[in-house]
Amino acid sequence: MSGDKVKVAIVGSTGYGGVELIRFLLGHPEVEIVSVISASSAGSPISDGFPHLTDIVVQPLDGVDAEQIAAKADVVFTATPSGVSAKLVPDLLQAGLKVIDLSGDFRLKDGAVYEEWYKHEAPEDNLLKQAVYGLCEINGDEVTRSSGLISNPGCYPTATLLGLIPALSAGWIDPQSIIIDAKSGVSGAGRGTSLMTHYGEINENLKVYKINKHQHIPEIEQSLSAVAGEQVTVTFTTHLVPMTRGIMSTMYASLKGEYTEADLVELYQQYYEGRKFVRVREAGKWPATKEVLGSNYCDIGFAVDPRTKRVTIVSVIDNVVKGAAGQAIQNLNIMMGWDETTGLNLSPVYP
Amino acid sequence: MSGDKVKVAIVGSTGYGGVELIRFLLGHPEVEIVSVISASSAGSPISDGFPHLTDIVVQPLDGVDAEQIAAKADVVFTATPSGVSAKLVPDLLQAGLKVIDLSGDFRLKDGAVYEEWYKHEAPEDNLLKQAVYGLCEINGDEVTRSSGLISNPGCYPTATLLGLIPALSAGWIDPQSIIIDAKSGVSGAGRGTSLMTHYGEINENLKVYKINKHQHIPEIEQSLSAVAGEQVTVTFTTHLVPMTRGIMSTMYASLKGEYTEADLVELYQQYYEGRKFVRVREAGKWPATKEVLGSNYCDIGFAVDPRTKRVTIVSVIDNVVKGAAGQAIQNLNIMMGWDETTGLNLSPVYP
Amino acid sequence: MSGDKVKVAIVGSTGYGGVELIRFLLGHPEVEIVSVISASSAGSPISDGFPHLTDIVVQPLDGVDAEQIAAKADVVFTATPSGVSAKLVPDLLQAGLKVIDLSGDFRLKDGAVYEEWYKHEAPEDNLLKQAVYGLCEINGDEVTRSSGLISNPGCYPTATLLGLIPALSAGWIDPQSIIIDAKSGVSGAGRGTSLMTHYGEINENLKVYKINKHQHIPEIEQSLSAVAGEQVTVTFTTHLVPMTRGIMSTMYASLKGEYTEADLVELYQQYYEGRKFVRVREAGKWPATKEVLGSNYCDIGFAVDPRTKRVTIVSVIDNVVKGAAGQAIQNLNIMMGWDETTGLNLSPVYP
Amino acid sequence: MSGDKVKVAIVGSTGYGGVELIRFLLGHPEVEIVSVISASSAGSPISDGFPHLTDIVVQPLDGVDAEQIAAKADVVFTATPSGVSAKLVPDLLQAGLKVIDLSGDFRLKDGAVYEEWYKHEAPEDNLLKQAVYGLCEINGDEVTRSSGLISNPGCYPTATLLGLIPALSAGWIDPQSIIIDAKSGVSGAGRGTSLMTHYGEINENLKVYKINKHQHIPEIEQSLSAVAGEQVTVTFTTHLVPMTRGIMSTMYASLKGEYTEADLVELYQQYYEGRKFVRVREAGKWPATKEVLGSNYCDIGFAVDPRTKRVTIVSVIDNVVKGAAGQAIQNLNIMMGWDETTGLNLSPVYP
Repeated sequence: MSGDKVKVAIVGSTGYGGVELIRFLLGHPEVEIVSVISASSAGSPISDGFPHLTDIVVQPLDGVDAEQIAAKADVVFTATPSGVSAKLVPDLLQAGLKVIDLSGDFRLKDGAVYEEWYKHEAPEDNLLKQAVYGLCEINGDEVTRSSGLISNPGCYPTATLLGLIPALSAGWIDPQSIIIDAKSGVSGAGRGTSLMTHYGEINENLKVYKINKHQHIPEIEQSLSAVAGEQVTVTFTTHLVPMTRGIMSTMYASLKGEYTEADLVELYQQYYEGRKFVRVREAGKWPATKEVLGSNYCDIGFAVDPRTKRVTIVSVIDNVVKGAAGQAIQNLNIMMGWDETTGLNLSPVYP
Repeated sequence: MSGDKVKVAIVGSTGYGGVELIRFLLGHPEVEIVSVISASSAGSPISDGFPHLTDIVVQPLDGVDAEQIAAKADVVFTATPSGVSAKLVPDLLQAGLKVIDLSGDFRLKDGAVYEEWYKHEAPEDNLLKQAVYGLCEINGDEVTRSSGLISNPGCYPTATLLGLIPALSAGWIDPQSIIIDAKSGVSGAGRGTSLMTHYGEINENLKVYKINKHQHIPEIEQSLSAVAGEQVTVTFTTHLVPMTRGIMSTMYASLKGEYTEADLVELYQQYYEGRKFVRVREAGKWPATKEVLGSNYCDIGFAVDPRTKRVTIVSVIDNVVKGAAGQAIQNLNIMMGWDETTGLNLSPVYP
Repeated sequence: MSGDKVKVAIVGSTGYGGVELIRFLLGHPEVEIVSVISASSAGSPISDGFPHLTDIVVQPLDGVDAEQIAAKADVVFTATPSGVSAKLVPDLLQAGLKVIDLSGDFRLKDGAVYEEWYKHEAPEDNLLKQAVYGLCEINGDEVTRSSGLISNPGCYPTATLLGLIPALSAGWIDPQSIIIDAKSGVSGAGRGTSLMTHYGEINENLKVYKINKHQHIPEIEQSLSAVAGEQVTVTFTTHLVPMTRGIMSTMYASLKGEYTEADLVELYQQYYEGRKFVRVREAGKWPATKEVLGSNYCDIGFAVDPRTKRVTIVSVIDNVVKGAAGQAIQNLNIMMGWDETTGLNLSPVYP
Repeated sequence: MSGDKVKVAIVGSTGYGGVELIRFLLGHPEVEIVSVISASSAGSPISDGFPHLTDIVVQPLDGVDAEQIAAKADVVFTATPSGVSAKLVPDLLQAGLKVIDLSGDFRLKDGAVYEEWYKHEAPEDNLLKQAVYGLCEINGDEVTRSSGLISNPGCYPTATLLGLIPALSAGWIDPQSIIIDAKSGVSGAGRGTSLMTHYGEINENLKVYKINKHQHIPEIEQSLSAVAGEQVTVTFTTHLVPMTRGIMSTMYASLKGEYTEADLVELYQQYYEGRKFVRVREAGKWPATKEVLGSNYCDIGFAVDPRTKRVTIVSVIDNVVKGAAGQAIQNLNIMMGWDETTGLNLSPVYP
């Protein structure tokens, strides 16, 4: 490929986030994939574990070695489990690479909070401070060419924050009234095998898990608190839905005024003006997860109940795209000064 | 079959509720099915439309004629669409039949409220008054041998009310804080064909519909208000989940005291003592819909968040059983003075 | 429970076959479950792993000890992985128990063939000889009160043999022309965790596996050869279908005469006369797996192609019921001289 | 868009084939969509019926008018139901448009055979003769710039013919021994509503339909006969699998020599050399439908059974892509002299 393309490497290529990075980056006009990396399967072709990539990715998987990565690549995506990036990223930065991290290890600014929710050791404080939280439509301005470490937001926080922040920022909802009922497809649990991902246990089943205990809660509260200018505490429930991809956040809040659905639509459309990947649905229409499947969109709809003076906000994403690989590439685009949609202009797959 | 069995007829046999009544009643030791009725398919065998009943139900479908039904049967289940029962039930009662109605037409005590939410004409007031609302574990005492018309609760209200009433009745939760995030499998939409039930549209999809507009809302509020002694207004969202059976109600309310999960478990276990079909899960465990699939159970679990002082209550049922046919038979059992579990002692189908 | 019920124990209670045995045996009027056994989870309640059994099975799981089982039980079902039964069953027989084995270890009469296909050591020859192959509708006559060891057929063989044997026995099809295209739901792979049962890999996917290599092939050929009076060799393909339960065998054979679909229907109806659990569909109608879901039925249909002189035979079962637990109980019924349908009279769950 | 792009119109935009054409054509560098046409919804935006296209396709739907289409477009895709194209295409050709037809109306060369299988009137003979059957990897050479009407192959024929023709062409299999066991996801049945596509009937179900009666049979036999040089008659079974996309053809044939799997792999790799969209799997590996989901690939694998001297060939496609919209665009590419992969270079969506 052309010598002046940006050279990228992917660590954690044998997870669902990793192969989704490959799917999009293969069609990205400014980028060349120079290394596909897996600690567990180095040396064999990725198609051994992912036959859908037969004849598409033929280079064998590389091992994890910061120096070797830096010798080939300009930017590295770390799609590793939480805890792994915390240890690996310092070496990658040290070697001169720019890092876009999908693991969750660098999202919380307070290491103590990280350790409370993630149950293992936090990265060093200076790294937590240095990391830019790349929720593109909200604080993409902080992502610049000089950013060395971008922390890609979690799947639940992406759907949730994009759905709440405009109303919260405008002072239209009571920050202490927020209840988030979130639902995810099973791919969010990764490719690891357990009863949690066993077909016989999940199919034809709807499960609730980690009520008020999910590690994405502090990430959501950190951003909401910054916007509200006060400590925001949310009620947060996560459900496992028998489907592969998709997140829906159904969010409830008390309205601080007599706002209509049309008012909310207008507020959000203005807030997200020019940002292609957020689609605000017109009043009375709500999005479904399949309407963003395989794409980088986040679709948002509203219902105002005049009887209870509450608003219900519905936000959907594809957890593997806008909730992981897609937004990571969007961050790369912003960091490089490219149009944020570069390489991401795929329509949803329907049906 | 034995002459001293109670003779039952089923109107609406070619809907999902109807065939589920057949499945359970075939195994009910005190009951004989004497007529299986369908307005649209009279004369042909039910196995034409439901081949799973081949060689099981061989009598041809009867037409809808109150006098003919009364000539054969003692009790009739009306598993008809809303609006149909309103017109049919007066004739059935007139003909001397006892009626257990699954349609929803007789659940609301106020005809005006019915017409507002159901968008068609309400039954006469005296029938609405006469109808006993058969939410078995809550007001089964009102169901007696002299009951002529039992109105079988809706699927969402069953899961929701069984989950909320003990805490509301004890004064532990704020009646005005209740938010209900409900999810249903597709069988709840019936066997009618539309894009709403089209496989290509529903599979791998999570949809939200009728936010704050579902006709089960006044049914829920009617019961909650009676318990609370004040007008209760709820926020109520319904979702369509890509599975056939199952309802989960995830409910949020503000706690009026420092109650723990263990407190709630104890409260609910006492409230439902002796009622086999409500299973209260121990603290820290929440039910999944598949754990009640094919059975008449309603399983309930709790999470208390000390940070927000809210409780999350999770209640699951099989919408076709406890949310329709199973509870209807439970009402028959109670009405006849039999053990309420008679004919309903099937364990959940797993996996 | 009543003292004169037959006392049964279940080894392997924490697999899908084991919990299905429990579901049916709990409703069996002649049987008492005296011990629910699991090597891996002894001491804890089964509801820890299977919450759907909460408040239904409360006795803690027992360990595997032949003497202790014999002290409590008359009959034991061994729903263990292949290889485990081979070692355990001799002790159970020695202790005086009657054994109905679901593992597959005692189905092949020739130990060498067993070792070739199962890849581990065969049970002793005298046990292989003693074991009665309990394909109820075919050779149920061999199951008697004096049977000590019944080998319950495999899921694929059950669907396949019930579909082929009447035509083969009548000499209507060419024994050397048989091609079997079999499809199974994922529960057939058991509750073990692997990529083979991972939701993300199986959902929205159709996979083929073990072509001509499945260990059920010699079991099928053994029975077909006995019927045909010559060595029968089949082409046999297995597919994994994204559903939990159900097997469909689509079978192809060359007709040895000008037989019509009506001829086949009549032949099969006569062959299975009086056997409730085999339902022969009328000409032009074919069964679907959901039409037997949760039940002990095997439904069979036919298509004759005059152009190619081949017949296509379609046979469906619920792999967990007729393909495992249900047929095992049917064998118990026959062995005890009870009606073969005792405790098994559940209609299919639909939808 | 650029004035020198080829201008295309899509008739039948509100079916699944139509929206898939849109998904791919939006990313096609040489093409501009100038008209999106629907007889039933003209005047409204396509996002009314397909919200996933919100903000992506904003032009309102046009009506069906050959002159108006010709005024705007160079090429038209007709993704219409069978029978509709037969009537519409003559006008489109008359108006000077090039037509790529997805309906099936122009695939059979013999109008009498068409009428026997499709049960309605065939197009005129001269059009049937003129139409080029666009099975790209087999007879793409016949598609040229002068082609006015390309008949895009059916979904089952595409998977089946690509899987059979190299072996048949080489004389390695007996043409009269071919048995095809085909399985399809539900999207193949289109967006029309019926019990055939009702979620409650299809989910957790495996159905067989139209055994030896599917209208794709003569299409398959026409091509196989041409290759074999004799009339080939196949046994052909179609199944409906509970998934949205994907076709698997499992094919059986008697080998005419001692060919190994490795021989077949080599034969097929040579046959398809340079054709990116056919991926021949190495010996011992078979494709799964999800491995081509959302992409234009057809993956093929083999199993040879030395015991029966039969080969089992497994071929998978995404029915909406390679079985419809993708191959139609591939035909456009070939017709225009572009690289056949232009605009189709999307990797499969996994998971």
